[in-house]
Amino acid sequence: RIMRPDDANIAGNVHGGTILKMIEEAGAIISTRHCNSQAGEPCVAALARVERTDFLSPMCIGEVANVSAEITYTSRHSVEVQVNVMSENILTGAKKVTNKATLWYVPLSLKNVNKVLEVPPIQYVRKEQEDEGKKRYEEQKLDRLETKQRNGDVIFPIINPEPHTVGYSQSSLIHLVGPSDCTLLGFVHGGVTMKLMDEVAGIVAARHCKTNIVTASVDAINFHEKIKKGSVITISGRMTFTSNKSMEIEVFVDADPFVDESRGRYRAVSAFFTYVSLSKEGKPLPVPQLLTETEDEKRRFEEGKGRYLQTKAKRQAQMQQAAQH
Amino acid sequence: RIMRPDDANIAGNVHGGTILKMIEEAGAIISTRHCNSQAGEPCVAALARVERTDFLSPMCIGEVANVSAEITYTSRHSVEVQVNVMSENILTGAKKVTNKATLWYVPLSLKNVNKVLEVPPIQYVRKEQEDEGKKRYEEQKLDRLETKQRNGDVIFPIINPEPHTVGYSQSSLIHLVGPSDCTLLGFVHGGVTMKLMDEVAGIVAARHCKTNIVTASVDAINFHEKIKKGSVITISGRMTFTSNKSMEIEVFVDADPFVDESRGRYRAVSAFFTYVSLSKEGKPLPVPQLLTETEDEKRRFEEGKGRYLQTKAKRQAQMQQAAQH
Amino acid sequence: RIMRPDDANIAGNVHGGTILKMIEEAGAIISTRHCNSQAGEPCVAALARVERTDFLSPMCIGEVANVSAEITYTSRHSVEVQVNVMSENILTGAKKVTNKATLWYVPLSLKNVNKVLEVPPIQYVRKEQEDEGKKRYEEQKLDRLETKQRNGDVIFPIINPEPHTVGYSQSSLIHLVGPSDCTLLGFVHGGVTMKLMDEVAGIVAARHCKTNIVTASVDAINFHEKIKKGSVITISGRMTFTSNKSMEIEVFVDADPFVDESRGRYRAVSAFFTYVSLSKEGKPLPVPQLLTETEDEKRRFEEGKGRYLQTKAKRQAQMQQAAQH
Repeated sequence: RIMRPDDANIAGNVHGGTILKMIEEAGAIISTRHCNSQAGEPCVAALARVERTDFLSPMCIGEVANVSAEITYTSRHSVEVQVNVMSENILTGAKKVTNKATLWYVPLSLKNVNKVLEVPPIQYVRKEQEDEGKKRYEEQKLDRLETKQRNGDVIFPIINPEPHTVGYSQSSLIHLVGPSDCTLLGFVHGGVTMKLMDEVAGIVAARHCKTNIVTASVDAINFHEKIKKGSVITISGRMTFTSNKSMEIEVFVDADPFVDESRGRYRAVSAFFTYVSLSKEGKPLPVPQLLTETEDEKRRFEEGKGRYLQTKAKRQAQMQQAAQH
Repeated sequence: RIMRPDDANIAGNVHGGTILKMIEEAGAIISTRHCNSQAGEPCVAALARVERTDFLSPMCIGEVANVSAEITYTSRHSVEVQVNVMSENILTGAKKVTNKATLWYVPLSLKNVNKVLEVPPIQYVRKEQEDEGKKRYEEQKLDRLETKQRNGDVIFPIINPEPHTVGYSQSSLIHLVGPSDCTLLGFVHGGVTMKLMDEVAGIVAARHCKTNIVTASVDAINFHEKIKKGSVITISGRMTFTSNKSMEIEVFVDADPFVDESRGRYRAVSAFFTYVSLSKEGKPLPVPQLLTETEDEKRRFEEGKGRYLQTKAKRQAQMQQAAQH
Repeated sequence: RIMRPDDANIAGNVHGGTILKMIEEAGAIISTRHCNSQAGEPCVAALARVERTDFLSPMCIGEVANVSAEITYTSRHSVEVQVNVMSENILTGAKKVTNKATLWYVPLSLKNVNKVLEVPPIQYVRKEQEDEGKKRYEEQKLDRLETKQRNGDVIFPIINPEPHTVGYSQSSLIHLVGPSDCTLLGFVHGGVTMKLMDEVAGIVAARHCKTNIVTASVDAINFHEKIKKGSVITISGRMTFTSNKSMEIEVFVDADPFVDESRGRYRAVSAFFTYVSLSKEGKPLPVPQLLTETEDEKRRFEEGKGRYLQTKAKRQAQMQQAAQH
C-alpha cells in the first residue's frame, strides 16, 4: 500500500512501527491460512515472537510497500514465517529492501482461546532446511524463557530531570484497546502492540537528541501474554544505552484489564529498540551520550553496550563471510 | 489485508466503499508505476473514471481481501486497469470473487498538475485485445461527456418529510480533506471520494428501509474535477428508484476550496449506487417502495427504472451467452 | 502521543476536537479504574459532563501531547476528573499548557447499562477540598437541568444564503457510529462526539471567515442521552455571535437509532464552541461580523453577547485576583 503522511514523521520517514504492523499482518494471514489448511478445529494464529529486525533503509511518504511472506519452518505447535518488505518508488521505479523479519506464530483454537492446536507440517525442498529451522526453533525457545524472567522491571517517574539523563527522555503512553486493534479472538494484534512500542521509543529518542530520528533495529520481542479487548495498555520507554551514533531504548507494555476483576495489571511484552539520528541528507549524526546516575542505570548501560558490541561483531562476521564468497 | 470491525456495518458486512477504496489504490499504484516506466517527466496517475461495478458477494469481518490489478489498455493519455478482488476466509480456505472493476487513469505531471503526460504503450498478446480496448475507450469517452451535462442538479432540503418519500431518506455529509486523503499532488484520491459516497448512499438506503443493507453495484463514475487538500466536500445522496428488492441512490460530491478564494463551490463527482437489503441468512429482502411527490422525482424514478431494466436485460443476455458456451 | 498531520488543519494547528478526545479518553480510563477498584459489579464510566474549557495555546504537528488526569471529587454516583494537557516540542524541549479540563463521569453497570452504580469515595488531603468539590458538584447539577430544557432547538436549512449570514455558514455532518467509536457497553465515547462537534463548528467558522481558524474554548457540555452503536448521528452547527475577534458556534447532536425501531430521532448533546482566526504569525485576526436576519437570530446573538461579556468579566476578575497575590 501507499505510505501516507500519517505513517511518517515530520521529516517524511515512515515510522518503523507502521512497517512492523504490516509485517505482522502478513505473517498472521499466512500462518492462520496454513494452520487451517487441514480439516479440524478452526484456529487463529497468534504472534508469539519476532526475531531481531534491522531496518535497512528508511521508507518515505508516497512510496509503495511490497510485503511478501513465506512459511519457513513448522514445529508441532508453532509456525516460523519470513516476511520481506521492499519499498518501491513508483515514480522512479527504484526498489530497496526495507527489512526482513522472522516471526513465530502459535495456532489458538477459535472456540477455546487457551487451547494450542497442532500445526500441519510443511514440505521442505532440502533436508538441511528442516534441520536449520529446528536449530532456529530451539534457539528462540531458550531466549523466550530468559525474557520471561527479566520482565519484572518498572519505570519510575523522575521530577525535574537534567537533559540527557535517563529520566529526562523517559516517556509513557496509555491506549484503550478498541475493536479494530483485535483479532477474531478478541486479543490485540501483535502488530498493533509493536506500532505503539515504536511510537513511545521514538518519542524517547527524539527527546534525547532533539533531531530527526528513525528506527534502526528492533531486538527479538517475545509475546508472553495476550491482551484482551477493552484493556488499557501502558507503554513505557527509557533509554538504556548510547553508542556514538545510536540509541537503545527499552520498552515495556503493561496491560490492565481493568473492567474484568479477575486479574490485575500485568507485564505483556518488553523489547529493545535501536534508533539513529539522520541529517537532512540521510546521513547518521552523532548522538549526545546518555548520562547514567543510579547503579541500575549504569548496569543497564553496560548490558546495552554488551548487546551493541555483540551485534556489531555478528555483523562484521557476516560481512567477512560475504566477502569471502 | 484483514477486514476489521471498522470496515463493516453492524451485521458484519464490509462496506462497499472500503472495497472501492482498496480497488482504487491498487489501480493508482499500477498505473503510476507504468506511466513512470520510461524516462521523462515524473507523474502521478489520477483516477478519471470507474466503470460500473457489481458486488457479487458480501465480504465479512476477519476475511482477507486479495486485490490484483492488471493494465489492459493504454490510449495516448489514459490507462485502463482491471482490478479483481477475492475474499478469502482464512479459517476455511474458501475464496469468492467479490468484485471486478475497470478504472481509467490519466498521468498528471508532478511539476505541473494541469499538464497531462503521454502514456507509454503496452504490448498486447493478441491484436483483438487492442481493438476491444480501443472500443471500450471510445465508449467511456462518450459517457463522460454525458455526465458532465447532468452534473448541474442540486439536492434541496425538505422539512418534516413523510416516511418513504425522497426527502425522508436524503442525507448529506461534510468532510474536511486531510493530508492522508490526498495523493502526492495534494488532490483527493478517487478511492477516498468513493468511500465517502458509499457511506452517504448507505445511510440513505438504511434510512429508507431500516434494515441491514449492502452495496449491490455502483454505476460508472466520472471524475471531472480534482479536489484540493484543505477543501470541504459535501456529499449528498437521495433515493431515485426502488424495484422490489433494490434501491437506487444518486450521490453528488461538491467541493468548496474555501480557504482559496479564487474559486467557489463546484460539483466534483456524481454517481448512482444500488443497494439491497439482506436478511440474517443473507437473502435479499423486499424493500418499501419509494413515494415520489414532485414532477422531478417522478421523472428521476422513471429514469432509474430505465437503468434498472437495461441492466437486467444486459445481465440476462450475458447469462444466455454463458449458457450457450 | 505525537500529533500527526491528520490531527491538524492545513496550517498545522491541531484540531481542538483531537485534544478533547484525548482528554475524555484519559478521564474515562481513570474513572473506570476507580469505580472498579472495590469488589462489586463491574462497570464502565460514562461521560456525563465536561466543564467549560479554554484552549490556551495551539498545538502543532510533530509536538507530543502529555495528558495527565486526577480524580478530584466523588459524589455518591459521580466522579469529577481534572485533566491537564501539556504540549511539548520534543526538538526544543519547550512545554506549554494547552488546556485544563474538568469532566464528570457516572459508573454504569456492565451487565445492565441503565443501572448507575455507587462510586467508592476518595480520601481528601484537606477538608476544604471536599467542600469545594461538593460546591462544584451542586453547581453543575443545576446547569445540567437548564440545558435539558434548551435542547429542543432545530437548525433549518436555508436556500441561497448571503455571505456572513447565519444560513451561509451553517453546516451539518452525518456519521454512522462504528465499533471503534464505542465503549465496552456499545455506546459512543463522549470524546468521539466532542471531536465530531468540533469538526462541524470548525467548518462553520472557516466558512464564515475563510481564514485559518482554531478552537479557543468550549462551553460546558452535558451528555444527557447515550448514543448506541449502529446509530446515525447528525451534527449541525450554526453561528450565533461574533465579537471583534471571536465567533461563537452552537452545535447540536441528534441521534437516530434507525435500525432499532423502538425509538425515533432524539437530541443527544448540544454545546457552544468559540473560535478565533489566526494570522500566519499566530496573532488573532478581526473576523467579519455575523449578519442576523430573523428575530430568533437576533435573540441568539444577544444571548451570545451575554455569554461573551460574562466570560470576559470573569477572566478580568481572575487576572486582578492573580495580580493581587
